[in-house]
This record gives sequence, structure tokens and C-alpha cells, in this order.
Amino acid sequence: MDDIVVIYKERPNLRDPILIEGLPGVGNVGKLAAEHMVDQLKAQKFIEIYSKYFPPQVLVSDSGVVRLVNNEMFYVRLPELPNDLIILVGDYQGLTPDGQYELSDRTLQIAKEFGVSTIYTLGGYGLGKMVETPRVLGAVTHESLVEEMSRFGVTFSKGEPGSGIVGVSGLLLGLGAIQGIKSVCLMGETSGYFVDPKGAQAVLEVLAKILKVEIDFTELEDKAQQIDALTSKLRESEAQPEPRREDLGYIG
Amino acid sequence: MDDIVVIYKERPNLRDPILIEGLPGVGNVGKLAAEHMVDQLKAQKFIEIYSKYFPPQVLVSDSGVVRLVNNEMFYVRLPELPNDLIILVGDYQGLTPDGQYELSDRTLQIAKEFGVSTIYTLGGYGLGKMVETPRVLGAVTHESLVEEMSRFGVTFSKGEPGSGIVGVSGLLLGLGAIQGIKSVCLMGETSGYFVDPKGAQAVLEVLAKILKVEIDFTELEDKAQQIDALTSKLRESEAQPEPRREDLGYIG
Amino acid sequence: MDDIVVIYKERPNLRDPILIEGLPGVGNVGKLAAEHMVDQLKAQKFIEIYSKYFPPQVLVSDSGVVRLVNNEMFYVRLPELPNDLIILVGDYQGLTPDGQYELSDRTLQIAKEFGVSTIYTLGGYGLGKMVETPRVLGAVTHESLVEEMSRFGVTFSKGEPGSGIVGVSGLLLGLGAIQGIKSVCLMGETSGYFVDPKGAQAVLEVLAKILKVEIDFTELEDKAQQIDALTSKLRESEAQPEPRREDLGYIG
Amino acid sequence: MDDIVVIYKERPNLRDPILIEGLPGVGNVGKLAAEHMVDQLKAQKFIEIYSKYFPPQVLVSDSGVVRLVNNEMFYVRLPELPNDLIILVGDYQGLTPDGQYELSDRTLQIAKEFGVSTIYTLGGYGLGKMVETPRVLGAVTHESLVEEMSRFGVTFSKGEPGSGIVGVSGLLLGLGAIQGIKSVCLMGETSGYFVDPKGAQAVLEVLAKILKVEIDFTELEDKAQQIDALTSKLRESEAQPEPRREDLGYIG
Repeated sequence: MDDIVVIYKERPNLRDPILIEGLPGVGNVGKLAAEHMVDQLKAQKFIEIYSKYFPPQVLVSDSGVVRLVNNEMFYVRLPELPNDLIILVGDYQGLTPDGQYELSDRTLQIAKEFGVSTIYTLGGYGLGKMVETPRVLGAVTHESLVEEMSRFGVTFSKGEPGSGIVGVSGLLLGLGAIQGIKSVCLMGETSGYFVDPKGAQAVLEVLAKILKVEIDFTELEDKAQQIDALTSKLRESEAQPEPRREDLGYIG
Repeated sequence: MDDIVVIYKERPNLRDPILIEGLPGVGNVGKLAAEHMVDQLKAQKFIEIYSKYFPPQVLVSDSGVVRLVNNEMFYVRLPELPNDLIILVGDYQGLTPDGQYELSDRTLQIAKEFGVSTIYTLGGYGLGKMVETPRVLGAVTHESLVEEMSRFGVTFSKGEPGSGIVGVSGLLLGLGAIQGIKSVCLMGETSGYFVDPKGAQAVLEVLAKILKVEIDFTELEDKAQQIDALTSKLRESEAQPEPRREDLGYIG
Repeated sequence: MDDIVVIYKERPNLRDPILIEGLPGVGNVGKLAAEHMVDQLKAQKFIEIYSKYFPPQVLVSDSGVVRLVNNEMFYVRLPELPNDLIILVGDYQGLTPDGQYELSDRTLQIAKEFGVSTIYTLGGYGLGKMVETPRVLGAVTHESLVEEMSRFGVTFSKGEPGSGIVGVSGLLLGLGAIQGIKSVCLMGETSGYFVDPKGAQAVLEVLAKILKVEIDFTELEDKAQQIDALTSKLRESEAQPEPRREDLGYIG
Repeated sequence: MDDIVVIYKERPNLRDPILIEGLPGVGNVGKLAAEHMVDQLKAQKFIEIYSKYFPPQVLVSDSGVVRLVNNEMFYVRLPELPNDLIILVGDYQGLTPDGQYELSDRTLQIAKEFGVSTIYTLGGYGLGKMVETPRVLGAVTHESLVEEMSRFGVTFSKGEPGSGIVGVSGLLLGLGAIQGIKSVCLMGETSGYFVDPKGAQAVLEVLAKILKVEIDFTELEDKAQQIDALTSKLRESEAQPEPRREDLGYIG
């Protein structure tokens, strides 16, 4: 089989579209944010990406119907704004380093087919401790974007993230830059212990301002409250000042 | 060498065949069930599949003759029924995620050569505790199959299996669905601690009803009794209320 | 680069040659045996095999000159006997399962270029305890070889080796059998704790009888005495009844 | 995407250039040495090498601009000497054995494009204990180089390094030798616990003598003093006679 199988459900004509990526990662911040956008903007699925770089796994719906794990692209027409949107969401990132490269490269190819010239990748920046008011850190492909992004409240902080950006959110920038695509990575601060809707909201609030779209955050706020309630209980029952990664893990 | 080597011992004409898959997995439920079918229905081997995605290993027969590990396909003619059968059994699943994808994809190609339009994959559903009367859980490619399977006693339970289905039993459904093949995965509940003939029998009883074939279960019942005797002894000698995975492992 | 690079130093005409394989493995029995043959029969190197399936490593000679790790083939002309010999030795087996398959398949291709129709693979059979008088176990590709080998003192024992044969010594038989090559694996019993010249000698004594060649064992016997002396000392200094794998490891 | 992507920023005409490699490794000796050369000789970047064999990672500059991890080649014109220089530095070596082979082979191809016939690879030789005055050990592709290098203070010591040379510093020699390129590996002794500017300086002092270039070592000496100060503090605060790898790790 082909290493990556791309199925086009539709080939929409999009006006100067912007690509937004949110796949699973630290605190699932990017995934939560992108999926929230898909929901709130009633985005339309038009591409499914299957690959042997994903786990050999199907997911089972509540009714018992299976679906092979994949990445999916949705589009949103925004006639009142200069750019339509393409949103990339999915179950997994590539399992191996070379799978990561291949999938990111293919994503860029698809983006270019539809005329994408700007990309926003969304992710979490794990601090290893609880965060009250998450900042949104930025990283960009072109020096000129630093000032532009700073105006929207994005923080550029010397030495953060110190170890760079690993995975698709970094690769789309790195590979894209070589091909002349302007890109920004927005990273919401998060403990990294939980799926973090608060970090996702922080990222989305910035992105909404940049794109000039309106997004309702009620659902993300509800999810954040549920997580808060859960972690409070866990902390009490464990009588520990801070939740430990080993005990709590991810709540997906 | 080719990544996958398929050797045809025979190219039988089969009437609208149904593919049944049972490879090693949780409790070896699928493998036991499929091998029991091969034995009881006197199925005929017609295909051997070798691959560098399998371990680099030969097995040695009691007489000292080696055999390279593989997957094998058998066929059964059932003139009194509308469908002949193809049964896939084997020593291993693919070792790596991409090997799993390649092997499942190739299996689907072979299935289509022979006109297969329906697949049943057999597996275990590990509960992590001893099961007295195993249920048979189902997952399907098409919504309409849920009701059809329920009539044969297959359980569809919201949130089970929560983590989806990993390996060939899931991939044949997931990859098959993309290619328009209707498929069902039947999962027999099992502790997951032992090779589990009881789980295999539960799965086969349902499958026999679906296919309208008659299968004698005496041998599986005998094997189940041997395992029961063995586990009882182990529990006594260890004076532990429940066998632990680390101590007992698989008995193959 | 090519996955496997074969460099021919010479293309000798060989009379109905027999291939003998001895690469690193349990107790390095096969490697010791094959290298001893190369030395004693003054075999001539004619092929070097390099591959990205081997470790990315060079070895450094005592004089400071490097050599990329590889496998090598030597030939021996035996005008007084019906068959010349090809002996395969080397620094490593393939690192990955697919590398093992690719290297074994390529070895078979080379063997067939030179007209090889019979292969002997040499290895160790790890017992996990010290062995006074190692037996030589056999496994074969064709039933008829069992009786033939038994006459030379090869033991065929039901259920041994229970887990089959892993690596090149098994694959050459398994892949070769599919291509119609008659092959025998000779496994010398060994503790598996040490490089084991005694196991190597046991294997070579059998092989020498089969091939009707004469081999002097003085050097292997000397090595065995050195290992014996070493293990005796270790046992005393540790005041332990049996050497433990973790402490002693391989002595190469 | 291609497994390895080579981007030429410039295609300079170089006079009989010598290739010098210094990528991350034991004590980062080679990387420090090669980067120091690039700085001191004001070398000019002309090639960027990206690859899916590197980690899927971008690094973020202090100003917030990303850069995909890579290897880079610089050139230095030395009109007063017979050879220009090409210096290979980078963020990583290949992640997998086959990636190591592919990247080293490609590096050799590029080297040959520019007419390279001699290579010096720089690395560390880890002793596992603190070193006061590091020796520089050598390994070569051709016997004749042993004497030549010895004259410049390179030590050739029987049995060192006992386990050979792993990674690009070894592969360039091993693969290059097969293709007829004369190469030398210079290994500075280092504890292996720290990034070691002292080991790097030892290697560079020898290399400068060989190449007849002048290099100022002030910066390396400063770095060495910083590391010394740091390790002294750590030793005091831990009240341990020797720093342990687990505690201190790499300081990069």
C-alpha cells in the first residue's frame, strides 16, 4: 500500500486559505483548540489521511462502527474575511521520526495544492507545574512575524522553548520555511499532566484575534471546569500538594 | 527480497467466499478459533504468506524439520450453503506498525482476488480478570450490521472496547471499509492471562450460527479443561487469590 | 547507498560447493566453529558484504587501521573430495528483523550464483547451565536428512529447540527450503554465558565427519582451557555456585 | 519527501579540499572542535542537509525564529596552503543505524563532488573518569598514515578504542576506505560526563599542526574553565569524589 493514502471527499475552491494544525501533543492543547474551531465554525471535512505511520488501530464508535485512525482536513469559508481556513485535526501524529517527516511533508503538499501561504500550528508548552493564567508563546519562520504576533499578545521569550519544538507543529514550520511558507507556532502554557482546555482556550483566543473570527468558548470553559473539579478531587484524595504524572496520566 | 512473498499452492474457484481471520492476539482467542475451524471443517491450505515483517525465525517440527514462520490461508467448500470460506491463520502478526498495515493490505488484495465481499475477524477482548461466561463483543464496518449481528447474540456495548482494536483484526475492517468490504470483528471476552479456549469457543459458537455451519467443540472443551486444571494448580501453589500476568504468562 | 553492498574480490570456479555459515550468536558457537575452519583449511576470502543493516561501526586493528563491520565469504578447494566449500563468517548478524531477512536472502542469491545446493548453518543451543559434554542438535529442511545426519552423531530431539531457531542460521534454512535448497542446522549445546569453544568443537567434529575433511582442534582446545580457567577463577572469587549472566557477560 | 535533502547555497570552486567532520558525540568533542574551527577561520556556509533520519524537531533562536535541525557544510579558502577546507557540523547524527549509513554515504558523495580526497573526523574517546591532560588517539584507513600522524603527536595504542568507532566518525572512514578515500579519525580523551572543550582543544591542536593552519584557542579555554568551575561546585555540593553520569549529564 502507499505509505500515505489521501482521500479527497471534495475539492473546494478556497480563497487564499490559511492552514491551522492541531494534532495530539502536550496537554492535547493543539488538538482541543483545533477541534473546537471545527465545531464552532461548522467546518466541512474534505480530506482524510490514512498512513502506515499511524498505529495499526481502529476506533469503535458508541454504536459499534469502526473507523481507521487518521488525520482529517476541514475547510471553513469566511466570505467577510480575506482568507478561508483549512483545519487539520486527527487521532495521532506519526509514530516514528521518519513518519513525522513524511506526514508533515505531505500535509504541506496538500496545503500548497489549495494555495495555502500561511500556517498556524497549535500546541502546548509543558511547564511541569500547574498554570493559573497560561501565556501563549510563539515561534515563527520569519523575523518580521515576531512583531506582528506580539501585537496580538503572543509572548516571545528568549530560551523558551529551550529544547525546540518536536513533532508536526515544529516540522510544518521547519519544512515550510524551506519552501517559503510563512508560519507561526502558538504554544499555550500547560502543566502537561492533563488534557488542558484552558491552554487550548488561551491559544484560540489569540488565534481568533489574529484571524478576526469570532469563537464561542463556552464549551471549552465547561471542559476546563470539569478538569478542575477532577484534579481538585484527586489532590484531596491523595493528600498531595501536586498531582503526579504517573498517577493521573492523560484524561482524554 | 519482496517485503511480502505470497505462494499459491492452488488457485481454487470459490463461490462468493467469506474470509475469516484468526491470528495470534489477546488470549490467542482468534488463533484458537480459526485453527479449530480449519481442523473441524477439514479446510484445504492453498496460500502461504512469508514476510520480512515477521520474526526472522523457523519453527522445528517434532521430527526435526524446519518451517519458516508464516501466515496461511485455507479454503472450505460448502456446497449446501451460499458461501465458501477462506480462513487465515498463522504464527505471528506483523512485528511493526507499518508491517501490520502492509500485511493487512496484502491480505485484502488476496481476498479480493477470490471475490471476498465479507470478512469476519476473530479476537479476544482482555478483561484483566477471570471470566466465567465470556460474552462476544462486536464491531462492524457498516451500521446495518449491528442489528444483524445482535440477532446472533453479539453484544454491542457503548465504550467497549474503549481503546479500539489494535492489529490485523482491526486493520482488515478499517482498511476494508475504505475499499467497500463489509466486515465484522468478533471479540471473545478473556482474562488475557492464558491462551483461552473458552473465549475461542464463545466466538466460534456465534460465528457458526452466522455462517450456518456445524462445528464440533469437543476438542476446544478439552483444552479449556486442561487450562482450568493448570490455573487451579498454579493458584494453589502460589496461595494467591488471582494469577498474576508476570508469573504465568502465556501458555502456548 | 544500496541496502547491501557485495564486493567480489575474486570469482572462483567452485565444484558443487557447500555453504557453511557461522555468524555471531548464542555462545558464539557458530562463529568460533566457522572461523576455526577458515584458519585450519586456509580458506581464501573472495567476498565482502557491507550493509546498513549492520551497526554503523568500524573496528580498529592493533596497528590502528579501521575496517567497516561486515560479513565475509571464504572458499576452500578440496580436490580430493566431491565438494568445494564456501564459508560465511562475520562481525554481526543483521540488527533488525527485516535486515535479517534481506541479508539471508542475499546470501542465498550469492550461494546460488556459485552453484550451492547444500547449506550447513552452525550455531549454539543455549541451556542456561554449564554443559560437560555438549550434544549437537540438528534441524533440517527435508525429512530424509534426519536419518542421514543421525548417522554422524547429530541428535534430533522432540521439542528441542522449543522456540525454533532465530536469526541467520534459521533463515538460511527457511528461505532456502522455499527455493529448494537442502540445508542442515547444527547446534552445539552451550551454557550461553560465555563464548564457548567447546560447543564449537563439538559442532565442528560432526561437520568434519559429514564433509570428510580433517581439522586440527588444538587451538579450539586451548581456547576452551583458557575459558575454563577464567570461569573457575570467577566462581571462586564470587563464592557463587554458578556464574550469573549479568556478572560475566560475553567474553569475546 | 527525499530521505535526505541537500540544499546548495553556493557551489564554490575549492582547491583540493580536505573534509573535517565534527558532529555531536562523546563529550561533544568533535562538534566543539569543528564549530570552533568554523568560527576562528570565518568559514562560509554553503550546504544544508536535512533528513528524515534526524529528529522531527525545530530549534528556536533567541529572537523566536525556528530552524529545522540539520547538518551544515562550511568552506574555508586557504590560499597560502595547498588545500582548502570543508567543515561538516550539525545538530545531530542520524537517529538509526541505517540513517547513519545513508547520511555518511551522502556526505561522501558531496565530498567527492568537490574533489575531497582526504578526511579528518573528530570525536571523543570516553574514559569514564576525569582526564587531566587528554591524549589524542588516532585511527586511519591506510597503514602509511599511522607513521605520518604519529609525527604530529597522535597516539596509536593497541586495543584502543577496543570497541571500534561508532557513528559518522567511524563510517566516513569505513565507507570512504571502500571508495579509496584516505581518512583519519582523531579522538580526544574525555571523561564523557560533560561537554568537553579541553578534549576539543587537544584534538584541534593536533589538527592545526597537520593542516598548518593557525587557530586561536582562547574561547575554548574559557569554556573549559567554565566547565571546570561548574564541576568543582557540583562535586563539593554532592560531597562525592567523582561526578556520576546520571546526576550531571550533558551540558550542551
